Amino acid sequence: MEKDIVVLRYGHRIVRDYRVTSHCCLVARAFGAKKVEIVGDKDQKIIDTVNDINKRWGNGAEAEFVDNWRPRISYYKNKGYKVVHLTMYGISVQDAEKTLENDKKILVVIGSQKVEPEVYEKADYNVSVTTQPHSEIAALAVFLDRMFKGNELTKKFSGAEVEIEPNPKGKTIHESRKNK
Amino acid sequence: MEKDIVVLRYGHRIVRDYRVTSHCCLVARAFGAKKVEIVGDKDQKIIDTVNDINKRWGNGAEAEFVDNWRPRISYYKNKGYKVVHLTMYGISVQDAEKTLENDKKILVVIGSQKVEPEVYEKADYNVSVTTQPHSEIAALAVFLDRMFKGNELTKKFSGAEVEIEPNPKGKTIHESRKNK
Repeated sequence: MEKDIVVLRYGHRIVRDYRVTSHCCLVARAFGAKKVEIVGDKDQKIIDTVNDINKRWGNGAEAEFVDNWRPRISYYKNKGYKVVHLTMYGISVQDAEKTLENDKKILVVIGSQKVEPEVYEKADYNVSVTTQPHSEIAALAVFLDRMFKGNELTKKFSGAEVEIEPNPKGKTIHESRKNK
Repeated sequence: MEKDIVVLRYGHRIVRDYRVTSHCCLVARAFGAKKVEIVGDKDQKIIDTVNDINKRWGNGAEAEFVDNWRPRISYYKNKGYKVVHLTMYGISVQDAEKTLENDKKILVVIGSQKVEPEVYEKADYNVSVTTQPHSEIAALAVFLDRMFKGNELTKKFSGAEVEIEPNPKGKTIHESRKNK
């Protein structure tokens, strides 16, 4: 089943979180999520980074800042999305894989700074990727890889100016300039 | 087959790369790598972060700064390790999974800033996780998840002061203070 997955990034601070949040956005895009919504300090640099990648590498998930996570969770719940909060305290991703097998629409919430207890309550599932502290970027990637069953790894992005051809020892890059 | 995987982080700049390099180290640890070696600016803060996590969460991969990547690659090659460089330009991780099926010992090289062409040459395999730009943290996590076939997700860490018990709606933390 083709899943429709939206990522909600909970928390972003200007400068300090630039790299981690942009990694989250690019992982969401590369691994086939539909969209990223970010709650936190509005940061045009993140939007520009994601737009540049979409222009050059093809049309994938865009990023958008939103004011508050609560109405966004309600919005997606009303549209039939299951809300999955990635946290080291949740049930295992192996179990979640089975539980979510037949859910087409998923909103994945990934924290940065400390997440309010209400997020744990509002989530349909709190899901952990290992029970060890590591990285929300890694947790998101492994979760998406398992949700999409590896099919995301060969996803094509339409309208790309640049495409990579796998090469065992160097770089093979196909470039085409879009007409303005 | 139980694999023995060492991670070589190619490049680290003080302050600027702190979070990304520490995420790489914690992913390596959480996903069952044996050790992390880092080439770049010596940064005690990284070592302290990893040591603190090992003390509190149990004994996993430690991190160490090394002077140059070349002798480290030679060292591991001489010990029978296959060298895998994670890069968006390489062969797919799906293919690498099959190719590396029977290799017990693997050195994974992950870049940060631009990697010298010599790394592509010296690697036994250049491997890509998607052919899109995203995050070396995500690439490392997905690569390790596939190498360890998901078994790393339930890895136990000896000597932990803290352990998480999976909880669908909150946090269950078991703590024990070590005697000094």
